[in-house]
Amino acid sequence: MSFSPVQSDNIAIATIRALAADVVTKANSGHPGAPMGMAPAAHVLFSRFVNANPKNSKWFNRDRFVLSNGHACALQYVLLHLLGYKLSMDDLKAFRQLDSLTPGHPEAGHTDGILLNRIERKVFLNDNFRSGVEVTTGPLGQGFGNGVGLAMAQAHLAATFNKDGFDLINNYTYVFCGDGCLMEGVASEAASLAGHLQLGNLIVVYDDNHISIDGDTNVAFTENVDQRFQSYGWQVLVVNNGDTDLAEIYNAITQAKSEKNKPTIIRLKTTIGYGSKQQGTHGVHGSPLKADDIQALKTKFGLPADQSFYVPQETYDAYAQIVKRGASLESEWNSLLSSYSQKYPKEHAELSRRIAGELPADWEKNLPVYKPTDAAVASRKLSEIALTAITPVLPELFGGSADLTGSNLTKVKGTVDFQPPSTGLGNYAGTYIRFGVREHGMGAIANGIAAYGGIIPFVATFLNFVSYAAGATRLSALSGHQVIWVATHDSIGLGEDGPTHQPVETAIHLRATPNLAFWRPADGNETSAAYYSAITSKKTPSVLSLSRQNLINLEGSTVEKALKGGYVLHEEQNEDLTIVSTGSEVPIAVEAAAKLKAEGIKTRVVSLPCWLTFDQQPEHYRLSVLRSGAPILSLELSHHEQYGLTGWGASGPYQKVYEKFGITGSNIAVVGKKVVDFYKQKGGPVVSPLIKAF
Amino acid sequence: MSFSPVQSDNIAIATIRALAADVVTKANSGHPGAPMGMAPAAHVLFSRFVNANPKNSKWFNRDRFVLSNGHACALQYVLLHLLGYKLSMDDLKAFRQLDSLTPGHPEAGHTDGILLNRIERKVFLNDNFRSGVEVTTGPLGQGFGNGVGLAMAQAHLAATFNKDGFDLINNYTYVFCGDGCLMEGVASEAASLAGHLQLGNLIVVYDDNHISIDGDTNVAFTENVDQRFQSYGWQVLVVNNGDTDLAEIYNAITQAKSEKNKPTIIRLKTTIGYGSKQQGTHGVHGSPLKADDIQALKTKFGLPADQSFYVPQETYDAYAQIVKRGASLESEWNSLLSSYSQKYPKEHAELSRRIAGELPADWEKNLPVYKPTDAAVASRKLSEIALTAITPVLPELFGGSADLTGSNLTKVKGTVDFQPPSTGLGNYAGTYIRFGVREHGMGAIANGIAAYGGIIPFVATFLNFVSYAAGATRLSALSGHQVIWVATHDSIGLGEDGPTHQPVETAIHLRATPNLAFWRPADGNETSAAYYSAITSKKTPSVLSLSRQNLINLEGSTVEKALKGGYVLHEEQNEDLTIVSTGSEVPIAVEAAAKLKAEGIKTRVVSLPCWLTFDQQPEHYRLSVLRSGAPILSLELSHHEQYGLTGWGASGPYQKVYEKFGITGSNIAVVGKKVVDFYKQKGGPVVSPLIKAF
Repeated sequence: MSFSPVQSDNIAIATIRALAADVVTKANSGHPGAPMGMAPAAHVLFSRFVNANPKNSKWFNRDRFVLSNGHACALQYVLLHLLGYKLSMDDLKAFRQLDSLTPGHPEAGHTDGILLNRIERKVFLNDNFRSGVEVTTGPLGQGFGNGVGLAMAQAHLAATFNKDGFDLINNYTYVFCGDGCLMEGVASEAASLAGHLQLGNLIVVYDDNHISIDGDTNVAFTENVDQRFQSYGWQVLVVNNGDTDLAEIYNAITQAKSEKNKPTIIRLKTTIGYGSKQQGTHGVHGSPLKADDIQALKTKFGLPADQSFYVPQETYDAYAQIVKRGASLESEWNSLLSSYSQKYPKEHAELSRRIAGELPADWEKNLPVYKPTDAAVASRKLSEIALTAITPVLPELFGGSADLTGSNLTKVKGTVDFQPPSTGLGNYAGTYIRFGVREHGMGAIANGIAAYGGIIPFVATFLNFVSYAAGATRLSALSGHQVIWVATHDSIGLGEDGPTHQPVETAIHLRATPNLAFWRPADGNETSAAYYSAITSKKTPSVLSLSRQNLINLEGSTVEKALKGGYVLHEEQNEDLTIVSTGSEVPIAVEAAAKLKAEGIKTRVVSLPCWLTFDQQPEHYRLSVLRSGAPILSLELSHHEQYGLTGWGASGPYQKVYEKFGITGSNIAVVGKKVVDFYKQKGGPVVSPLIKAF
Repeated sequence: MSFSPVQSDNIAIATIRALAADVVTKANSGHPGAPMGMAPAAHVLFSRFVNANPKNSKWFNRDRFVLSNGHACALQYVLLHLLGYKLSMDDLKAFRQLDSLTPGHPEAGHTDGILLNRIERKVFLNDNFRSGVEVTTGPLGQGFGNGVGLAMAQAHLAATFNKDGFDLINNYTYVFCGDGCLMEGVASEAASLAGHLQLGNLIVVYDDNHISIDGDTNVAFTENVDQRFQSYGWQVLVVNNGDTDLAEIYNAITQAKSEKNKPTIIRLKTTIGYGSKQQGTHGVHGSPLKADDIQALKTKFGLPADQSFYVPQETYDAYAQIVKRGASLESEWNSLLSSYSQKYPKEHAELSRRIAGELPADWEKNLPVYKPTDAAVASRKLSEIALTAITPVLPELFGGSADLTGSNLTKVKGTVDFQPPSTGLGNYAGTYIRFGVREHGMGAIANGIAAYGGIIPFVATFLNFVSYAAGATRLSALSGHQVIWVATHDSIGLGEDGPTHQPVETAIHLRATPNLAFWRPADGNETSAAYYSAITSKKTPSVLSLSRQNLINLEGSTVEKALKGGYVLHEEQNEDLTIVSTGSEVPIAVEAAAKLKAEGIKTRVVSLPCWLTFDQQPEHYRLSVLRSGAPILSLELSHHEQYGLTGWGASGPYQKVYEKFGITGSNIAVVGKKVVDFYKQKGGPVVSPLIKAF
């Protein structure tokens, strides 16, 4: 097949460029330059290559598209609209406005928090926030990593489920990115691993427009990108005229698809803001075009200069054909799947289960349960025992470690490495991933794997180095990706490696991240609970903070109790004190309680392995755990009079965003009054928070 | 000069290898493999090339050595001992033990925290923790970035102060690193920038031993490292036999030094754990050698098999010669400096001031001061005004942005870019750095610049993307590097860019990092205070969290008050309530207070721009700000009954580390009793922390 451009192609591209400019100018905020520059590539890609069905954006074998340079989202929104995804012209006009479907950067899912009443809060996820957006992008480099993850997921599921004559899972992953993404270390890490893994299904289009926010990329980015990607083992192609040579673009993508054993990067030379008077300068990167500039641009492109948000019927018609093609592709695939179900009923049932994200019946019965008389074991080892128990019944577990396998204890005996067969080290059906020392890349890749579906990714490193991946973990939480972090060597308990490896701020950081379940189990039953929660929380990432040192199995712990996030481990009536603690400090709290008891001070002990889970329990339960009547001493826990966000922010003019979350003088006055009334009612002296008991 | 190996070279190398094995085996913890593999390179480098004076480890023009693969620190400690730095044989025997000078990873400085009494805590820095260790390493990739920073500092100060005939500042920076460092994105970012900057004074020795924790590097790291570094613009050299061919090592370093316009990476092929029965396997990476293995190794190397920690007199003697050479080099340099002081008295005075880390007299008088009637301005703009005011009097300010110059507002008009002259974009005397979109690399580079001395580095990005650099900021704080982060677009106040760019967990994360001053100024005077504090805190990194939106200048704010970290912005006698707030929320608190006043509720307002600084004020002051008698409502602040670490952890067996910080049953029992007594004394009902006022 060769490329035959038609008149409608040029009209469509002009329309996309003008629409992107209109969208940004109407919002008076956003980035017109990259959308205008990448419009031809986007049009050729979506009109000739992308296999997807806009009417069913969740079709499993669809090609995945990732806009790693997420600030160019006007381009993506315009295309989604033309392609008939659920995005109206009014949605385009609401670009970057509060609660619109067209936020400042593309969001695939969006977790939000609400305060139900004075002590109850709820975090919820809207995962159909943007139909047609595969992953949340914008923070540079993340989308690139997500793309590698999406491609790994495809390779893995293909090797697991495809059969002769049944090429069921064979989609491509297309990534658009800019200079910024390629400068980020997270992309370097992911790119090196993608080359090693020989991911032929991954095609990256790099918008080489020579402009970043600081001006010409010559000021900081003069490396030889082609050579760098060759060194990673990628196929490198160059399109010299990405502005107008549609055939050149077409041929490059065709060549990329035909290379089966290497990922491809297409260096697409474009002019940023093509068509604007300021084209080729950073003036068009992040600022709206002026009215006269837009008018001149439309005239130049043969579009009506006085009309905004204009789409020629011809363009709508051309795109309708693309939609038709997508629908028929899905329909053909469904027929293939149907034959597959006849010939391979077991595999079909399993694939269907995994696509639906359902867990096998009774899987949780494999989780180990412990008695106080069981030997003391490090919780990293308890994690290995749990993984070993559930891996045979949960083939969707697909993950590994950032080169700390023997320390994280994440490789279950008998599992095969996920490797290109040619390496002789494993195969693509293998479930154990060797990430290399690439924590940030690993986090971004895991987000992509989770976004693909049918897989529960797990990743591992020391808790201290989860911080290297903070840019990815916050996007897991924001987007609602089920990613499980096995984070061993938590706290100062790791000992000899010293303070460079001892996380002291990390638990607080991760707990402060909305919709992230930070589990710090204290013993075997709590570790099993952490795994149960992590496996069943389909829209929440979990970080399992695990000890290097041995922990006793606690009197009073059960999996069921721990699943509430917090519970009374040791009860006393009419207590004098409650001690609240987590993880390896709980046995210390128990010891302290026994000593206090001997001195006549009745002390309860509460174990609180996961704040997020505890926060989701009913009010009466939580009040029964952290009850009134006696002081509470925390061996980690923090609770305080605080007014702030209960979830993530939102896209919109900042004043409206402030208003949405009640951060206004009027509302704070209302809250303030409540505090006064509360303390009046409470009675007794009020003491400075600085005056502490120790 | 060519290389003539002598018998003593081989004896010294055998001694280093055996000592490294002894050190790890005695500790029963640590990494013998890399030290044994890199011993020849280390010996050749230190005996033939490194210009340094062990008797004055702070000599300014010394060559800098960075062990980026910090887990190999047994090697560094052994060399420091042989070279006569302040490290005795007993110190080597205390490897990885609590409070030793030989912690699990090299620490140049070490901040620690102590609880002075129930409400006072102090963070202090021991910056002579390890004489001869330039930077704290271990978290992989960081040392590589530090090395780039050290080399940039050298290039900048050389261009600023050297004169014809006075090549005063001309040292080299040598970095050792392993596979792990090169897999990390932070190193990729730093390497790309180093190539762009043509840092001919930077020489990296890469230990290509093909082994990482997961086994052969073939499992995850198959990129072409040579080609990758060539793509960055580096000179790439290969030493094929790093185990025994000393001349090859010598020639490579010589060639590296002679390339003036490119950084060099020497790929040194070695056998990990050379000499051990397990050499070449990951068995020697992170586990001590067995007794019989060490004995056989010593026999093989011609050392007494039954002696541990043995150093032949011949080796001590050979190293004494190196020390002599170092002392005479410094003495020659001092003569040169003396002549320089004659010919260039002004420059000499300035260089001396900067080396001493002293600030020019009255520099702070340039800081702007504001009245409530001054126009409302975004604090990122207030930051620009402050930078513009102090830059002319503080030439030691050297920094820039991760490609957000126009948004961070960090480039002061008239400043010149720090660029290789051949680019035509600036010169090495320029003070403005174009980091590219490389936040993590930027953070690690800034640590290296700070470690060099004579410079105050500043770096900039959005607050949200400081998280990308979390691995570097925590090392700034741990090591006590004065790095200033200009972190704009804080909070949801950035508006349209949406939740992908809105930090909500970041302030909590950074405040939880010991010895990191997180400033969130509310207006102009507080911004000036933040700069005053950041510039004068020589051993503490500062993150200035700045708004995109305009902020009014507050009635009641002054630079002096803000410098206490927290102060009463609006006073009331016999108040009913105090509201505590920070940054852009303070004016909202003021508004709320006025509304409450109208309803007869007397409300004080406290502004708390920097918790760390506030914590360092005397008790009576802090109690006067957050006083007893009325409830306190926080619009961000958190204070609670909490027992935990007040600073960083320490290196040692974990039980001893726990004991050091009082995390034991006995001590928690004591603390628990204090809490009970405290509440008894306080009287009044005790209410669950879950029952809140709103």
